[in-house]
Amino acid sequence: MPQFDRKRILDTFKYQNLLLHIGAELTDVRPGFAEIQLPYKEELTQHNGYFHAGIISAIADTTGGYAAYTMMQPDNNVMAVEFKVNFINPARGEKLIARAEVIKAGRTLAVCRIDIFLSEKENEKLCAVMQQTIISVPFKEITP
Amino acid sequence: MPQFDRKRILDTFKYQNLLLHIGAELTDVRPGFAEIQLPYKEELTQHNGYFHAGIISAIADTTGGYAAYTMMQPDNNVMAVEFKVNFINPARGEKLIARAEVIKAGRTLAVCRIDIFLSEKENEKLCAVMQQTIISVPFKEITP
Amino acid sequence: MPQFDRKRILDTFKYQNLLLHIGAELTDVRPGFAEIQLPYKEELTQHNGYFHAGIISAIADTTGGYAAYTMMQPDNNVMAVEFKVNFINPARGEKLIARAEVIKAGRTLAVCRIDIFLSEKENEKLCAVMQQTIISVPFKEITP
Amino acid sequence: MPQFDRKRILDTFKYQNLLLHIGAELTDVRPGFAEIQLPYKEELTQHNGYFHAGIISAIADTTGGYAAYTMMQPDNNVMAVEFKVNFINPARGEKLIARAEVIKAGRTLAVCRIDIFLSEKENEKLCAVMQQTIISVPFKEITP
Repeated sequence: MPQFDRKRILDTFKYQNLLLHIGAELTDVRPGFAEIQLPYKEELTQHNGYFHAGIISAIADTTGGYAAYTMMQPDNNVMAVEFKVNFINPARGEKLIARAEVIKAGRTLAVCRIDIFLSEKENEKLCAVMQQTIISVPFKEITP
Repeated sequence: MPQFDRKRILDTFKYQNLLLHIGAELTDVRPGFAEIQLPYKEELTQHNGYFHAGIISAIADTTGGYAAYTMMQPDNNVMAVEFKVNFINPARGEKLIARAEVIKAGRTLAVCRIDIFLSEKENEKLCAVMQQTIISVPFKEITP
Repeated sequence: MPQFDRKRILDTFKYQNLLLHIGAELTDVRPGFAEIQLPYKEELTQHNGYFHAGIISAIADTTGGYAAYTMMQPDNNVMAVEFKVNFINPARGEKLIARAEVIKAGRTLAVCRIDIFLSEKENEKLCAVMQQTIISVPFKEITP
Repeated sequence: MPQFDRKRILDTFKYQNLLLHIGAELTDVRPGFAEIQLPYKEELTQHNGYFHAGIISAIADTTGGYAAYTMMQPDNNVMAVEFKVNFINPARGEKLIARAEVIKAGRTLAVCRIDIFLSEKENEKLCAVMQQTIISVPFKEITP
Protein backbone atom coordinates (compact mmCIF):
# COMPACT_ATOMS: atom_id res chain seq x y z
CA MET A 1 0.00 0.00 0.00
CA PRO A 2 1.35 3.43 -0.91
CA GLN A 3 2.05 5.97 1.81
CA PHE A 4 -0.96 7.97 2.80
CA ASP A 5 -0.70 11.69 1.98
CA ARG A 6 -3.76 13.42 3.38
CA LYS A 7 -3.01 16.88 2.05
CA ARG A 8 -2.31 15.63 -1.48
CA ILE A 9 -5.61 13.77 -1.54
CA LEU A 10 -7.67 16.65 -0.13
CA ASP A 11 -6.10 18.93 -2.77
CA THR A 12 -7.47 16.84 -5.63
CA PHE A 13 -11.00 17.82 -4.66
CA LYS A 14 -10.48 21.03 -6.64
CA TYR A 15 -10.85 18.95 -9.82
CA GLN A 16 -14.31 17.72 -8.79
CA ASN A 17 -16.34 20.14 -10.90
CA LEU A 18 -19.78 18.74 -10.12
CA LEU A 19 -19.20 18.42 -6.41
CA LEU A 20 -17.87 21.95 -6.13
CA HIS A 21 -20.77 23.22 -8.23
CA ILE A 22 -23.38 21.71 -5.91
CA GLY A 23 -21.56 22.86 -2.79
CA ALA A 24 -20.20 19.54 -1.49
CA GLU A 25 -17.14 19.37 0.77
CA LEU A 26 -14.59 16.59 1.34
CA THR A 27 -14.68 16.68 5.13
CA ASP A 28 -12.51 13.70 6.01
CA VAL A 29 -10.11 11.27 4.43
CA ARG A 30 -8.15 8.54 6.20
CA PRO A 31 -6.67 5.24 5.02
CA GLY A 32 -9.67 3.24 3.81
CA PHE A 33 -12.19 5.93 4.71
CA ALA A 34 -13.65 9.19 3.36
CA GLU A 35 -16.50 11.55 4.18
CA ILE A 36 -18.30 14.15 2.05
CA GLN A 37 -20.98 16.60 3.21
CA LEU A 38 -23.54 18.49 1.16
CA PRO A 39 -25.90 21.20 2.44
CA TYR A 40 -29.49 21.27 1.22
CA LYS A 41 -30.43 23.41 -1.78
CA GLU A 42 -33.80 23.35 -3.47
CA GLU A 43 -32.23 22.87 -6.91
CA LEU A 44 -30.81 19.51 -5.82
CA THR A 45 -34.22 17.96 -5.15
CA GLN A 46 -36.77 15.80 -6.96
CA HIS A 47 -40.54 16.21 -7.11
CA ASN A 48 -41.13 15.58 -3.39
CA GLY A 49 -38.49 18.04 -2.20
CA TYR A 50 -36.06 15.28 -1.23
CA PHE A 51 -32.43 15.28 -2.34
CA HIS A 52 -32.51 13.66 -5.80
CA ALA A 53 -31.30 10.05 -6.01
CA GLY A 54 -28.67 11.23 -8.50
CA ILE A 55 -27.28 13.75 -6.00
CA ILE A 56 -27.19 11.12 -3.26
CA SER A 57 -25.41 8.86 -5.75
CA ALA A 58 -23.00 11.63 -6.78
CA ILE A 59 -21.67 12.25 -3.30
CA ALA A 60 -21.76 8.57 -2.30
CA ASP A 61 -19.88 7.55 -5.45
CA THR A 62 -17.21 10.22 -4.98
CA THR A 63 -16.81 9.38 -1.28
CA GLY A 64 -16.23 5.74 -2.24
CA GLY A 65 -13.73 6.82 -4.89
CA TYR A 66 -11.75 8.81 -2.33
CA ALA A 67 -11.80 5.99 0.22
CA ALA A 68 -10.45 3.63 -2.44
CA TYR A 69 -7.92 6.23 -3.62
CA THR A 70 -6.29 6.19 -0.16
CA MET A 71 -5.45 2.51 -0.67
CA MET A 72 -4.31 2.56 -4.30
CA GLN A 73 -1.37 3.91 -6.29
CA PRO A 74 -1.47 7.71 -5.87
CA ASP A 75 -0.50 8.40 -9.48
CA ASN A 76 -3.35 6.27 -10.77
CA ASN A 77 -6.78 7.35 -11.84
CA VAL A 78 -9.67 6.02 -9.83
CA MET A 79 -13.08 5.46 -11.46
CA ALA A 80 -16.31 3.70 -10.63
CA VAL A 81 -16.88 0.42 -12.48
CA GLU A 82 -20.39 0.23 -11.07
CA PHE A 83 -22.45 0.81 -7.98
CA LYS A 84 -25.78 -0.17 -6.49
CA VAL A 85 -27.70 2.02 -4.11
CA ASN A 86 -30.83 1.45 -1.99
CA PHE A 87 -32.90 4.42 -0.84
CA ILE A 88 -34.31 3.58 2.56
CA ASN A 89 -35.58 6.82 4.10
CA PRO A 90 -36.75 10.15 2.65
CA ALA A 91 -33.76 12.43 2.12
CA ARG A 92 -35.17 15.73 3.30
CA GLY A 93 -33.19 17.83 5.75
CA GLU A 94 -30.30 20.23 6.22
CA LYS A 95 -27.41 18.20 5.02
CA LEU A 96 -26.33 14.94 3.41
CA ILE A 97 -23.30 13.12 4.82
CA ALA A 98 -21.71 10.22 2.93
CA ARG A 99 -19.21 7.94 4.66
CA ALA A 100 -17.30 5.30 2.72
CA GLU A 101 -15.34 2.32 3.94
CA VAL A 102 -13.09 0.16 1.78
CA ILE A 103 -14.12 -3.49 2.15
CA LYS A 104 -11.43 -4.84 -0.15
CA ALA A 105 -8.51 -3.16 -1.89
CA GLY A 106 -6.91 -5.28 -4.60
CA ARG A 107 -4.28 -4.37 -7.18
CA THR A 108 -6.81 -3.22 -9.75
CA LEU A 109 -10.23 -3.29 -8.12
CA ALA A 110 -11.57 -2.07 -4.80
CA VAL A 111 -14.96 -2.60 -3.20
CA CYS A 112 -16.54 0.00 -0.92
CA ARG A 113 -19.62 0.26 1.23
CA ILE A 114 -21.02 3.76 1.62
CA ASP A 115 -23.61 4.95 4.14
CA ILE A 116 -25.48 8.15 3.34
CA PHE A 117 -27.07 10.03 6.24
CA LEU A 118 -29.54 12.86 6.40
CA SER A 119 -28.44 15.28 9.10
CA GLU A 120 -31.01 17.55 10.78
CA LYS A 121 -30.21 19.54 13.92
CA GLU A 122 -27.19 17.33 14.63
CA ASN A 123 -29.32 14.17 14.40
CA GLU A 124 -28.33 11.74 11.68
CA LYS A 125 -30.64 9.27 9.97
CA LEU A 126 -29.49 6.69 7.45
CA CYS A 127 -31.20 7.45 4.14
CA ALA A 128 -29.30 5.33 1.60
CA VAL A 129 -26.71 2.55 1.35
CA MET A 130 -24.36 1.91 -1.56
CA GLN A 131 -22.11 -0.97 -2.60
CA GLN A 132 -19.52 0.06 -5.18
CA THR A 133 -16.70 -1.32 -7.33
CA ILE A 134 -13.75 0.97 -8.14
CA ILE A 135 -11.01 0.47 -10.73
CA SER A 136 -7.56 2.00 -10.51
CA VAL A 137 -5.84 2.58 -13.86
CA PRO A 138 -2.68 4.45 -14.87
CA PHE A 139 -3.58 7.95 -16.05
CA LYS A 140 -2.14 7.50 -19.53
CA GLU A 141 -4.65 4.73 -20.24
CA ILE A 142 -7.62 7.03 -20.02
CA THR A 143 -6.37 10.40 -21.22
CA PRO A 144 -6.37 11.12 -24.95
CA MET B 1 -53.15 -0.31 -16.57
CA PRO B 2 -54.38 3.29 -16.33
CA GLN B 3 -54.97 5.28 -19.50
CA PHE B 4 -51.87 6.94 -20.85
CA ASP B 5 -51.95 10.74 -20.75
CA ARG B 6 -48.83 12.04 -22.43
CA LYS B 7 -49.39 15.71 -21.77
CA ARG B 8 -50.15 15.18 -18.09
CA ILE B 9 -46.93 13.21 -17.66
CA LEU B 10 -44.75 15.68 -19.57
CA ASP B 11 -46.18 18.48 -17.43
CA THR B 12 -44.92 16.93 -14.21
CA PHE B 13 -41.35 17.52 -15.34
CA LYS B 14 -41.68 21.08 -14.03
CA TYR B 15 -41.42 19.63 -10.49
CA GLN B 16 -38.02 18.06 -11.26
CA ASN B 17 -35.87 20.74 -9.65
CA LEU B 18 -32.51 19.05 -10.12
CA LEU B 19 -33.12 18.05 -13.71
CA LEU B 20 -34.29 21.53 -14.67
CA HIS B 21 -31.31 23.04 -12.84
CA ILE B 22 -28.78 20.98 -14.81
CA GLY B 23 -30.56 21.60 -18.11
CA ALA B 24 -32.10 18.17 -18.76
CA GLU B 25 -35.17 17.73 -20.94
CA LEU B 26 -37.85 15.01 -20.99
CA THR B 27 -37.78 14.37 -24.73
CA ASP B 28 -40.10 11.38 -25.02
CA VAL B 29 -42.60 9.41 -23.02
CA ARG B 30 -44.71 6.49 -24.25
CA PRO B 31 -46.34 3.55 -22.46
CA GLY B 32 -43.43 1.69 -20.87
CA PHE B 33 -40.79 4.03 -22.25
CA ALA B 34 -39.17 7.40 -21.54
CA GLU B 35 -36.21 9.44 -22.81
CA ILE B 36 -34.28 12.30 -21.19
CA GLN B 37 -31.49 14.34 -22.79
CA LEU B 38 -28.83 16.46 -21.12
CA PRO B 39 -26.35 18.76 -22.90
CA TYR B 40 -22.74 18.89 -21.69
CA LYS B 41 -21.70 21.50 -19.15
CA GLU B 42 -18.33 21.63 -17.46
CA GLU B 43 -19.90 21.89 -14.01
CA LEU B 44 -21.48 18.45 -14.46
CA THR B 45 -18.15 16.64 -14.79
CA GLN B 46 -15.73 14.74 -12.58
CA HIS B 47 -11.92 14.98 -12.48
CA ASN B 48 -11.39 13.63 -16.02
CA GLY B 49 -13.90 15.94 -17.67
CA TYR B 50 -16.47 13.16 -18.11
CA PHE B 51 -20.08 13.55 -17.04
CA HIS B 52 -20.07 12.63 -13.34
CA ALA B 53 -21.46 9.19 -12.44
CA GLY B 54 -24.01 10.94 -10.23
CA ILE B 55 -25.30 13.00 -13.16
CA ILE B 56 -25.52 9.91 -15.36
CA SER B 57 -27.41 8.26 -12.50
CA ALA B 58 -29.66 11.29 -12.02
CA ILE B 59 -30.97 11.29 -15.57
CA ALA B 60 -31.09 7.48 -15.84
CA ASP B 61 -32.99 7.17 -12.57
CA THR B 62 -35.52 9.84 -13.55
CA THR B 63 -35.98 8.32 -17.01
CA GLY B 64 -36.74 4.97 -15.38
CA GLY B 65 -39.15 6.66 -13.00
CA TYR B 66 -41.05 8.22 -15.90
CA ALA B 67 -41.16 4.97 -17.87
CA ALA B 68 -42.62 3.23 -14.80
CA TYR B 69 -45.01 6.12 -14.17
CA THR B 70 -46.65 5.50 -17.56
CA MET B 71 -47.68 2.03 -16.36
CA MET B 72 -48.79 2.84 -12.82
CA GLN B 73 -51.65 4.69 -11.12
CA PRO B 74 -51.36 8.32 -12.27
CA ASP B 75 -52.27 9.74 -8.88
CA ASN B 76 -49.54 7.74 -7.18
CA ASN B 77 -46.05 8.85 -6.32
CA VAL B 78 -43.23 7.02 -8.04
CA MET B 79 -39.86 6.61 -6.31
CA ALA B 80 -36.71 4.55 -6.77
CA VAL B 81 -36.32 1.68 -4.32
CA GLU B 82 -32.82 1.06 -5.65
CA PHE B 83 -30.75 0.95 -8.80
CA LYS B 84 -27.48 -0.46 -10.05
CA VAL B 85 -25.44 1.14 -12.81
CA ASN B 86 -22.37 0.01 -14.76
CA PHE B 87 -20.15 2.59 -16.44
CA ILE B 88 -18.80 1.05 -19.61
CA ASN B 89 -17.39 3.88 -21.73
CA PRO B 90 -16.05 7.37 -20.94
CA ALA B 91 -18.93 9.85 -20.87
CA ARG B 92 -17.35 12.80 -22.64
CA GLY B 93 -19.24 14.49 -25.47
CA GLU B 94 -22.01 16.89 -26.41
CA LYS B 95 -24.99 15.26 -24.84
CA LEU B 96 -26.23 12.41 -22.65
CA ILE B 97 -29.35 10.52 -23.69
CA ALA B 98 -31.06 8.10 -21.29
CA ARG B 99 -33.69 5.68 -22.57
CA ALA B 100 -35.71 3.56 -20.17
CA GLU B 101 -37.82 0.48 -20.79
CA VAL B 102 -40.17 -1.11 -18.27
CA ILE B 103 -39.32 -4.82 -17.94
CA LYS B 104 -42.07 -5.57 -15.44
CA ALA B 105 -44.88 -3.44 -14.06
CA GLY B 106 -46.58 -4.93 -11.01
CA ARG B 107 -49.14 -3.42 -8.66
CA THR B 108 -46.55 -1.92 -6.34
CA LEU B 109 -43.14 -2.46 -7.91
CA ALA B 110 -41.78 -1.96 -11.40
CA VAL B 111 -38.41 -2.96 -12.85
CA CYS B 112 -36.71 -0.93 -15.59
CA ARG B 113 -33.64 -1.21 -17.72
CA ILE B 114 -32.08 2.06 -18.77
CA ASP B 115 -29.44 2.62 -21.46
CA ILE B 116 -27.42 5.82 -21.28
CA PHE B 117 -25.74 7.03 -24.48
CA LEU B 118 -23.16 9.67 -25.17
CA SER B 119 -24.12 11.57 -28.29
CA GLU B 120 -21.47 13.36 -30.35
CA LYS B 121 -22.20 14.76 -33.81
CA GLU B 122 -25.31 12.57 -34.11
CA ASN B 123 -23.34 9.43 -33.27
CA GLU B 124 -24.41 7.61 -30.13
CA LYS B 125 -22.24 5.40 -27.97
CA LEU B 126 -23.51 3.39 -25.02
CA CYS B 127 -21.74 4.69 -21.90
CA ALA B 128 -23.73 3.20 -19.02
CA VAL B 129 -26.45 0.64 -18.25
CA MET B 130 -28.81 0.69 -15.29
CA GLN B 131 -31.21 -1.83 -13.73
CA GLN B 132 -33.71 -0.20 -11.40
CA THR B 133 -36.60 -0.99 -9.03
CA ILE B 134 -39.43 1.55 -8.69
CA ILE B 135 -42.17 1.68 -6.07
CA SER B 136 -45.55 3.32 -6.60
CA VAL B 137 -47.21 4.60 -3.44
CA PRO B 138 -50.26 6.78 -2.81
CA PHE B 139 -49.17 10.40 -2.31
CA LYS B 140 -50.59 10.64 1.20
CA GLU B 141 -48.25 7.90 2.41
CA ILE B 142 -45.16 9.96 1.83
CA THR B 143 -46.21 13.53 2.42
CA PRO B 144 -46.21 14.87 5.98
CA MET C 1 -42.97 -5.15 14.94
CA PRO C 2 -44.42 -8.61 15.61
CA GLN C 3 -43.20 -10.62 18.57
CA PHE C 4 -40.10 -12.62 17.86
CA ASP C 5 -40.61 -16.40 17.95
CA ARG C 6 -37.24 -18.07 17.49
CA LYS C 7 -38.47 -21.63 17.44
CA ARG C 8 -41.22 -20.91 14.91
CA ILE C 9 -38.72 -19.28 12.59
CA LEU C 10 -36.09 -22.01 12.88
CA ASP C 11 -38.80 -24.58 12.13
CA THR C 12 -39.56 -23.05 8.74
CA PHE C 13 -36.10 -24.05 7.52
CA LYS C 14 -37.53 -27.51 6.80
CA TYR C 15 -39.27 -25.97 3.76
CA GLN C 16 -35.96 -24.78 2.29
CA ASN C 17 -35.49 -27.61 -0.20
CA LEU C 18 -32.35 -26.29 -1.89
CA LEU C 19 -30.59 -25.35 1.32
CA LEU C 20 -31.31 -28.73 2.90
CA HIS C 21 -30.18 -30.46 -0.29
CA ILE C 22 -26.79 -28.74 -0.30
CA GLY C 23 -26.28 -29.29 3.44
CA ALA C 24 -26.77 -25.75 4.76
CA GLU C 25 -27.86 -25.06 8.32
CA LEU C 26 -29.69 -22.09 9.86
CA THR C 27 -27.33 -21.58 12.79
CA ASP C 28 -28.69 -18.39 14.32
CA VAL C 29 -31.67 -16.11 14.14
CA ARG C 30 -32.31 -13.05 16.29
CA PRO C 31 -34.38 -9.89 15.72
CA GLY C 32 -32.83 -8.27 12.65
CA PHE C 33 -30.14 -10.93 12.27
CA ALA C 34 -29.62 -14.42 10.84
CA GLU C 35 -26.71 -16.78 10.14
CA ILE C 36 -26.44 -19.76 7.80
CA GLN C 37 -23.48 -22.13 7.48
CA LEU C 38 -22.58 -24.46 4.63
CA PRO C 39 -19.77 -27.06 4.64
CA TYR C 40 -17.64 -27.51 1.52
CA LYS C 41 -18.60 -30.13 -1.04
CA GLU C 42 -16.94 -30.53 -4.41
CA GLU C 43 -20.28 -30.52 -6.23
CA LEU C 44 -20.93 -26.97 -5.04
CA THR C 45 -17.89 -25.51 -6.83
CA GLN C 46 -17.09 -23.79 -10.11
CA HIS C 47 -14.15 -24.42 -12.46
CA ASN C 48 -11.46 -23.25 -9.99
CA GLY C 49 -12.71 -25.35 -7.09
CA TYR C 50 -14.23 -22.35 -5.29
CA PHE C 51 -17.77 -22.33 -3.98
CA HIS C 52 -19.89 -21.29 -6.99
CA ALA C 53 -21.18 -17.70 -6.99
CA GLY C 54 -24.70 -19.12 -7.17
CA ILE C 55 -24.18 -21.12 -3.98
CA ILE C 56 -22.72 -18.09 -2.20
CA SER C 57 -25.78 -16.17 -3.42
CA ALA C 58 -28.16 -18.94 -2.34
CA ILE C 59 -27.08 -18.91 1.27
CA ALA C 60 -26.61 -15.13 1.43
CA ASP C 61 -30.05 -14.53 -0.06
CA THR C 62 -31.75 -16.94 2.33
CA THR C 63 -29.90 -15.51 5.33
CA GLY C 64 -31.12 -12.04 4.36
CA GLY C 65 -34.64 -13.40 3.95
CA TYR C 66 -34.57 -14.85 7.46
CA ALA C 67 -33.14 -11.68 9.00
CA ALA C 68 -35.97 -9.69 7.35
CA TYR C 69 -38.54 -12.30 8.38
CA THR C 70 -37.75 -11.64 12.05
CA MET C 71 -38.93 -8.03 11.58
CA MET C 72 -42.02 -8.60 9.43
CA GLN C 73 -45.51 -10.08 9.85
CA PRO C 74 -44.96 -13.76 10.72
CA ASP C 75 -47.88 -14.98 8.61
CA ASN C 76 -46.50 -13.21 5.53
CA ASN C 77 -44.36 -14.63 2.81
CA VAL C 78 -40.90 -13.17 2.43
CA MET C 79 -39.22 -13.05 -0.99
CA ALA C 80 -36.22 -11.35 -2.57
CA VAL C 81 -37.08 -8.45 -4.87
CA GLU C 82 -33.45 -8.23 -5.92
CA PHE C 83 -29.90 -8.42 -4.64
CA LYS C 84 -26.41 -7.40 -5.63
CA VAL C 85 -23.31 -9.30 -4.59
CA ASN C 86 -19.57 -8.56 -4.90
CA PHE C 87 -17.09 -11.42 -4.80
CA ILE C 88 -13.94 -10.13 -3.12
CA ASN C 89 -11.84 -13.14 -2.17
CA PRO C 90 -11.60 -16.72 -3.48
CA ALA C 91 -14.18 -18.89 -1.74
CA ARG C 92 -12.16 -22.04 -1.14
CA GLY C 93 -12.16 -23.62 2.30
CA GLU C 94 -14.05 -25.75 4.79
CA LYS C 95 -17.19 -23.76 5.26
CA LEU C 96 -19.18 -20.75 4.14
CA ILE C 97 -20.85 -18.58 6.78
CA ALA C 98 -23.39 -15.93 5.80
CA ARG C 99 -24.48 -13.29 8.32
CA ALA C 100 -27.30 -10.90 7.52
CA GLU C 101 -28.29 -7.65 9.19
CA VAL C 102 -31.49 -5.75 8.51
CA ILE C 103 -30.64 -2.14 7.62
CA LYS C 104 -34.24 -1.02 7.23
CA ALA C 105 -37.52 -2.81 7.88
CA GLY C 106 -40.55 -1.05 6.42
CA ARG C 107 -44.14 -2.20 6.11
CA THR C 108 -43.64 -3.87 2.75
CA LEU C 109 -39.93 -3.74 1.95
CA ALA C 110 -36.80 -4.50 3.94
CA VAL C 111 -33.16 -3.90 3.07
CA CYS C 112 -30.38 -6.20 4.31
CA ARG C 113 -26.63 -6.29 4.18
CA ILE C 114 -25.09 -9.74 4.17
CA ASP C 115 -21.45 -10.65 4.78
CA ILE C 116 -20.27 -14.03 3.53
CA PHE C 117 -17.16 -15.51 5.13
CA LEU C 118 -14.96 -18.41 4.24
CA SER C 119 -14.05 -20.31 7.37
CA GLU C 120 -10.88 -22.42 7.51
CA LYS C 121 -9.55 -23.84 10.78
CA GLU C 122 -11.64 -21.38 12.79
CA ASN C 123 -10.25 -18.43 10.82
CA GLU C 124 -12.79 -16.41 8.90
CA LYS C 125 -12.11 -14.37 5.79
CA LEU C 126 -14.68 -12.14 4.12
CA CYS C 127 -15.27 -13.51 0.60
CA ALA C 128 -18.42 -11.73 -0.58
CA VAL C 129 -20.79 -8.90 0.35
CA MET C 130 -24.44 -8.59 -0.61
CA GLN C 131 -27.02 -5.80 -0.51
CA GLN C 132 -30.57 -7.07 -0.82
CA THR C 133 -34.21 -5.92 -1.01
CA ILE C 134 -36.91 -8.13 0.50
CA ILE C 135 -40.68 -7.90 0.05
CA SER C 136 -43.21 -9.21 2.54
CA VAL C 137 -46.57 -10.20 1.06
CA PRO C 138 -49.60 -12.02 2.44
CA PHE C 139 -49.40 -15.70 1.50
CA LYS C 140 -52.66 -15.69 -0.47
CA GLU C 141 -51.20 -13.16 -2.92
CA ILE C 142 -48.60 -15.52 -4.23
CA THR C 143 -50.21 -18.93 -3.99
CA PRO C 144 -52.41 -20.10 -6.84
CA MET D 1 -10.62 -10.29 -30.07
CA PRO D 2 -9.36 -13.88 -30.07
CA GLN D 3 -10.70 -16.37 -32.58
CA PHE D 4 -13.89 -18.04 -31.49
CA ASP D 5 -13.55 -21.79 -30.86
CA ARG D 6 -17.00 -23.16 -30.08
CA LYS D 7 -15.95 -26.70 -29.35
CA ARG D 8 -13.16 -25.65 -26.99
CA ILE D 9 -15.57 -23.48 -25.03
CA LEU D 10 -18.34 -26.09 -24.82
CA ASP D 11 -15.75 -28.59 -23.58
CA THR D 12 -14.90 -26.48 -20.53
CA PHE D 13 -18.40 -27.06 -19.17
CA LYS D 14 -17.13 -30.38 -17.79
CA TYR D 15 -15.31 -28.37 -15.08
CA GLN D 16 -18.56 -26.77 -13.89
CA ASN D 17 -19.15 -29.03 -10.89
CA LEU D 18 -22.20 -27.28 -9.51
CA LEU D 19 -23.94 -26.90 -12.84
CA LEU D 20 -23.40 -30.54 -13.74
CA HIS D 21 -24.59 -31.57 -10.28
CA ILE D 22 -27.89 -29.72 -10.62
CA GLY D 23 -28.43 -30.94 -14.19
CA ALA D 24 -27.78 -27.75 -16.16
CA GLU D 25 -26.69 -27.81 -19.78
CA LEU D 26 -24.72 -25.29 -21.85
CA THR D 27 -27.06 -25.23 -24.85
CA ASP D 28 -25.56 -22.47 -26.96
CA VAL D 29 -22.47 -20.33 -27.20
CA ARG D 30 -21.68 -17.77 -29.90
CA PRO D 31 -19.46 -14.67 -29.95
CA GLY D 32 -20.92 -12.43 -27.25
CA PHE D 33 -23.73 -14.82 -26.37
CA ALA D 34 -24.42 -17.95 -24.31
CA GLU D 35 -27.43 -19.99 -23.18
CA ILE D 36 -27.84 -22.45 -20.31
CA GLN D 37 -30.92 -24.58 -19.55
CA LEU D 38 -31.91 -26.26 -16.31
CA PRO D 39 -34.84 -28.68 -15.83
CA TYR D 40 -36.97 -28.42 -12.70
CA LYS D 41 -36.14 -30.55 -9.66
CA GLU D 42 -37.78 -30.21 -6.29
CA GLU D 43 -34.44 -30.02 -4.50
CA LEU D 44 -33.64 -26.78 -6.36
CA THR D 45 -36.58 -24.88 -4.90
CA GLN D 46 -37.29 -22.51 -2.00
CA HIS D 47 -40.23 -22.54 0.41
CA ASN D 48 -42.87 -21.73 -2.25
CA GLY D 49 -41.74 -24.40 -4.69
CA TYR D 50 -40.11 -21.89 -7.02
CA PHE D 51 -36.57 -22.30 -8.30
CA HIS D 52 -34.40 -20.79 -5.54
CA ALA D 53 -32.93 -17.34 -6.23
CA GLY D 54 -29.48 -18.86 -5.75
CA ILE D 55 -30.12 -21.42 -8.50
CA ILE D 56 -31.43 -18.72 -10.85
CA SER D 57 -28.29 -16.75 -10.00
CA ALA D 58 -26.05 -19.78 -10.51
CA ILE D 59 -27.13 -20.41 -14.08
CA ALA D 60 -27.42 -16.71 -14.95
CA ASP D 61 -23.95 -15.99 -13.59
CA THR D 62 -22.37 -18.90 -15.47
CA THR D 63 -24.18 -17.98 -18.68
CA GLY D 64 -22.77 -14.46 -18.40
CA GLY D 65 -19.31 -15.88 -17.73
CA TYR D 66 -19.48 -17.97 -20.90
CA ALA D 67 -20.75 -15.08 -23.00
CA ALA D 68 -17.83 -12.95 -21.76
CA TYR D 69 -15.40 -15.83 -22.26
CA THR D 70 -16.17 -15.85 -26.00
CA MET D 71 -14.81 -12.29 -26.21
CA MET D 72 -11.72 -12.58 -24.00
CA GLN D 73 -8.34 -14.28 -24.10
CA PRO D 74 -9.07 -18.03 -24.25
CA ASP D 75 -6.20 -18.95 -21.92
CA ASN D 76 -7.47 -16.58 -19.24
CA ASN D 77 -9.68 -17.33 -16.30
CA VAL D 78 -13.05 -15.66 -16.24
CA MET D 79 -14.71 -14.80 -12.92
CA ALA D 80 -17.61 -12.69 -11.71
CA VAL D 81 -16.61 -9.44 -10.00
CA GLU D 82 -20.23 -8.85 -9.04
CA PHE D 83 -23.78 -9.13 -10.26
CA LYS D 84 -27.21 -7.76 -9.50
CA VAL D 85 -30.40 -9.66 -10.17
CA ASN D 86 -34.09 -8.71 -10.02
CA PHE D 87 -36.74 -11.39 -9.59
CA ILE D 88 -39.80 -10.29 -11.50
CA ASN D 89 -42.06 -13.34 -11.87
CA PRO D 90 -42.47 -16.57 -9.89
CA ALA D 91 -40.01 -19.17 -11.17
CA ARG D 92 -42.18 -22.28 -11.17
CA GLY D 93 -42.26 -24.47 -14.25
CA GLU D 94 -40.49 -27.15 -16.27
CA LYS D 95 -37.26 -25.45 -17.11
CA LEU D 96 -35.12 -22.36 -16.57
CA ILE D 97 -33.36 -20.84 -19.57
CA ALA D 98 -30.69 -18.17 -19.10
CA ARG D 99 -29.50 -16.11 -22.07
CA ALA D 100 -26.55 -13.75 -21.74
CA GLU D 101 -25.41 -10.94 -24.00
CA VAL D 102 -22.11 -9.09 -23.68
CA ILE D 103 -22.79 -5.34 -23.50
CA LYS D 104 -19.12 -4.35 -23.31
CA ALA D 105 -15.93 -6.38 -23.59
CA GLY D 106 -12.83 -4.52 -22.46
CA ARG D 107 -9.29 -5.77 -21.94
CA THR D 108 -9.88 -6.75 -18.33
CA LEU D 109 -13.57 -6.28 -17.60
CA ALA D 110 -16.73 -7.25 -19.41
CA VAL D 111 -20.34 -6.33 -18.68
CA CYS D 112 -23.23 -8.67 -19.47
CA ARG D 113 -26.99 -8.55 -19.34
CA ILE D 114 -28.69 -11.87 -18.69
CA ASP D 115 -32.38 -12.70 -19.13
CA ILE D 116 -33.71 -15.72 -17.25
CA PHE D 117 -36.90 -17.32 -18.56
CA LEU D 118 -39.24 -19.88 -17.13
CA SER D 119 -40.24 -22.31 -19.85
CA GLU D 120 -43.49 -24.25 -19.59
CA LYS D 121 -44.93 -26.21 -22.53
CA GLU D 122 -42.73 -24.28 -24.96
CA ASN D 123 -43.97 -20.94 -23.61
CA GLU D 124 -41.32 -18.72 -22.09
CA LYS D 125 -41.88 -16.10 -19.44
CA LEU D 126 -39.20 -13.71 -18.20
CA CYS D 127 -38.66 -14.40 -14.49
CA ALA D 128 -35.41 -12.59 -13.66
CA VAL D 129 -32.93 -10.09 -15.12
CA MET D 130 -29.26 -9.79 -14.22
CA GLN D 131 -26.54 -7.19 -14.84
CA GLN D 132 -23.06 -8.56 -14.28
CA THR D 133 -19.38 -7.57 -14.29
CA ILE D 134 -16.79 -10.16 -15.33
CA ILE D 135 -13.01 -10.02 -14.91
CA SER D 136 -10.55 -11.89 -17.09
CA VAL D 137 -7.24 -12.76 -15.42
CA PRO D 138 -4.30 -14.95 -16.42
CA PHE D 139 -4.67 -18.37 -14.78
CA LYS D 140 -1.42 -18.14 -12.83
CA GLU D 141 -2.71 -15.12 -10.93
CA ILE D 142 -5.43 -17.07 -9.22
CA THR D 143 -4.02 -20.55 -8.76
CA PRO D 144 -1.86 -21.17 -5.70
